[in-house]
Amino acid sequence: MIQVPHLTFDMDTPGVSTGHLVVPGGADCEALLLPLFSLNKGEGPRLLITGGNHGNELQGPIVARRLVDWLPEAQTCGRVIIVPEINPLAVQAWTRNTPIDGKNLNREFPGSADGSVTERIADAVSRLLLPMADTVFDLHSFGPKWDFPPAVVTHPIADSNLMARTLRMAEAFKLPVTLLWEHDDTLGMFDTWAHRQGKLFVCAEFGGGTVGSEALAIYEAGVRNALVALQLVKGNADCPTFRQQKSSRTLQTLLSDALKSPSRGIFEPRCSSLDEVKQGDVIGVLHPMDSLSAGSIKICAATTSIVCAIRSGAHVELNEGVAILARPLDDERRAHFDLEYQKVPE
Amino acid sequence: MIQVPHLTFDMDTPGVSTGHLVVPGGADCEALLLPLFSLNKGEGPRLLITGGNHGNELQGPIVARRLVDWLPEAQTCGRVIIVPEINPLAVQAWTRNTPIDGKNLNREFPGSADGSVTERIADAVSRLLLPMADTVFDLHSFGPKWDFPPAVVTHPIADSNLMARTLRMAEAFKLPVTLLWEHDDTLGMFDTWAHRQGKLFVCAEFGGGTVGSEALAIYEAGVRNALVALQLVKGNADCPTFRQQKSSRTLQTLLSDALKSPSRGIFEPRCSSLDEVKQGDVIGVLHPMDSLSAGSIKICAATTSIVCAIRSGAHVELNEGVAILARPLDDERRAHFDLEYQKVPE
Repeated sequence: MIQVPHLTFDMDTPGVSTGHLVVPGGADCEALLLPLFSLNKGEGPRLLITGGNHGNELQGPIVARRLVDWLPEAQTCGRVIIVPEINPLAVQAWTRNTPIDGKNLNREFPGSADGSVTERIADAVSRLLLPMADTVFDLHSFGPKWDFPPAVVTHPIADSNLMARTLRMAEAFKLPVTLLWEHDDTLGMFDTWAHRQGKLFVCAEFGGGTVGSEALAIYEAGVRNALVALQLVKGNADCPTFRQQKSSRTLQTLLSDALKSPSRGIFEPRCSSLDEVKQGDVIGVLHPMDSLSAGSIKICAATTSIVCAIRSGAHVELNEGVAILARPLDDERRAHFDLEYQKVPE
Repeated sequence: MIQVPHLTFDMDTPGVSTGHLVVPGGADCEALLLPLFSLNKGEGPRLLITGGNHGNELQGPIVARRLVDWLPEAQTCGRVIIVPEINPLAVQAWTRNTPIDGKNLNREFPGSADGSVTERIADAVSRLLLPMADTVFDLHSFGPKWDFPPAVVTHPIADSNLMARTLRMAEAFKLPVTLLWEHDDTLGMFDTWAHRQGKLFVCAEFGGGTVGSEALAIYEAGVRNALVALQLVKGNADCPTFRQQKSSRTLQTLLSDALKSPSRGIFEPRCSSLDEVKQGDVIGVLHPMDSLSAGSIKICAATTSIVCAIRSGAHVELNEGVAILARPLDDERRAHFDLEYQKVPE
């Protein structure tokens, strides 16, 4: 008998209420109980905040958990649902994918009630949480293997109006980078599924590498800015200070801007994220460590660009991604988005 | 038939020569060929430099590989043997331990010729490389899960004179931190085995977290300083710039200075490495994520101290280490080491 996902409490209860989202058990593991915080202040925007979609990106669960401490006091209207860890199995294992079935939760939406555990999580989130929200903040990071700035990311969205509104929402975080990222692996993403339902979906990418205290404060400030923009809390939005600067810019990157490893070996980064580079500048060096004769190979920028993401020094396979270059959002695209945005009544 | 570890070339060849250290195959895997660089400029100090002892600490292999580019020109005397990856299986898997047998190479010295692959690597290094050196630099880092400064570490050594000489050698790196670290898990360490042979063994701990370009330059400068101190290369030693400062200090930490997680959950760091804290200051917060009722738990400093290492935001189990506090080396110990050091003719 297939059990169905359910909530252990009534989320319509006014004020703060807590309980679990129950993901039914199956042949591979027992039922999962995901702690959930419901902040219900009546009419207004309906926001879902999720962390721990990928288990080695701990920035999201920590920021989500911190929100629970102050948001109930600060929220003036609307509803916020916070699930700090939507994939606790992966978080506990510190792995991107769920260890039990090896699946990437962010490629399994909308999931399946009778699938393996990752599919069942996606199904429970899709069926019970997504319908309760108009806007979703899914809190990711680039994980421990990358140097990446505090950013909010959106992939191109076919619906021009939703694209324009999503970019505007992403920029409301006022993080150092908002990135419009062309990507060819979007099937089954939580983003893609939420967009199909016409939801505003913002994917935060809260840096990469070490999850440190200063960076966490920046990420939390970004979420607060977005809550202010949604009018869920009162206050002023302000760019957080990052590397002694308060700035925020929108970048774009194409599939062809991803640099790949030219060989198997150890990648040595020669740049940091947000470095500006010119054609021919060395981004990193690939050391083929198995060989005594193969020399080290320089990996260079093809054009003037900004290093958006750069791989941590690590063993990489041939054609593995080692850097993502970017450039400022072009004026034509910006004008197009602005026009689309104005078509929607506020 | 047990095969024996061997070298594919004659390391006594003058100048630069390259070849492999062959670790014999066994029931668990085929023979391993570890690329090895021998820099032989005749009489003088004999130094062995190893990286990749732990496979998720890539700073060592990168710095070792970079040395191969400039040291042959710069070296004026003596012999340097460089093995960038002594455990390539772990490096390729980005794991601390060897994936095939699950063993920690740095707890398997002196190894065993008929043991599993990790034991065979330790045996090959102990038998063929260690005897050729008077001094060993084993290049580690704190790995991706920690915020840790560029440092050289030594555990207390029973032989007072070797202790004093080791500390002096460690300080010659002029990295921001030299750490005298009381530790209760030293059996089978490469350090311990080398000390038994009366060798000077320096364990570099090249930071933690993301392996980035700026940090790598600091680590390489540290190794160059040590090579200058050994008189293998000419030049001046200079503290590398770290966080806008050129400084170097020696700290000590006791077993009781290690902070453990008070519960299972997500650790949120509230400090950065090298922050100075007073009694009662919050080092981090433990969020028990499984529970709706258990509140977050503050983890505080017991006394005035310096945060030497702090765990990245991560899921931790009960009693898992989350921070290491330290304080400056006390004057009495310093005076004792200075006295011991003077007993040895230069």
